[in-house]
Amino acid sequence: MNEIGGYDIEDLEAGMSAIYAKPITEADILSFAAASGDNNAVHIDEEFARTTPFKGRVAHGMLTASVISAALAGHLPGPGTVYLGQTLRFKAPVRPDDTVHATVTVKELRPEKSQVVMSTVCTVGGKVVIDGEAVVMVTSRARRLAECAAHTDPAAIVSQSSEAL
Amino acid sequence: MNEIGGYDIEDLEAGMSAIYAKPITEADILSFAAASGDNNAVHIDEEFARTTPFKGRVAHGMLTASVISAALAGHLPGPGTVYLGQTLRFKAPVRPDDTVHATVTVKELRPEKSQVVMSTVCTVGGKVVIDGEAVVMVTSRARRLAECAAHTDPAAIVSQSSEAL
Repeated sequence: MNEIGGYDIEDLEAGMSAIYAKPITEADILSFAAASGDNNAVHIDEEFARTTPFKGRVAHGMLTASVISAALAGHLPGPGTVYLGQTLRFKAPVRPDDTVHATVTVKELRPEKSQVVMSTVCTVGGKVVIDGEAVVMVTSRARRLAECAAHTDPAAIVSQSSEAL
Repeated sequence: MNEIGGYDIEDLEAGMSAIYAKPITEADILSFAAASGDNNAVHIDEEFARTTPFKGRVAHGMLTASVISAALAGHLPGPGTVYLGQTLRFKAPVRPDDTVHATVTVKELRPEKSQVVMSTVCTVGGKVVIDGEAVVMVTSRARRLAECAAHTDPAAIVSQSSEAL
């Protein structure tokens, strides 16, 4: 683990998994609308939303997707994770007061770049509402040790500087 | 255009583009943290964030990405758009009070499915912070007319029902 409670690349292996669950409340939808600037009536206006194929208000897809980001940053790999990429397939609508379960699973390790490919799936009541993949960069114990050595051993600093040239 | 001001598939052609700009304020970041459940210190705690490689607080990647969603839903194709998928590559951090410009451009039309592939790029001060692609479903004038005909012409209803079997 790193000093802020996240997993280092050396701690991770394929198949490790975490779930983070969050209810999407009406207040969350309104906060998200304000923060994103997406005030589309299908998210805000129940009367209008009833006339659409959704038959009622739905959460913004990106709000549901943000539960994935919370699972990655808060749980696995956890604090210290840097988001590099995400694919999202929106499979079904999420309604106010649905609880979204985001399951994130280590799929592939790229230790030479401290990168991890994670499968990322959101479900509501067992039904998949989003699936996709994330690519994240995580901390590395080996790199921390190398940096520490470089700061205390002048020879290591010289060797590191030459590499950078 | 459809009845709520969005583009029908018949109105769109490759190369059409729209820009939506939104400042990401500190208040937006706090609202997004609450709505998503992602309270990672690098977004919230300036003192901690200064010790990270970012050297200060950064907006959640998914908050910046949500400006793309606002551009699609509010501008092009506009109201009536249904989000089917999105790819995101996070290229550079966004800081509180940066203004994010989301540019969405029609890349490919799939009229048989009323789907459109859009290129989606976010910039801050001209620098790309996110790039990627969205797949959306849009309304169709031809489909509206067919549905209208089906409701008024009993023969059309029969023919449509047979097709559904």
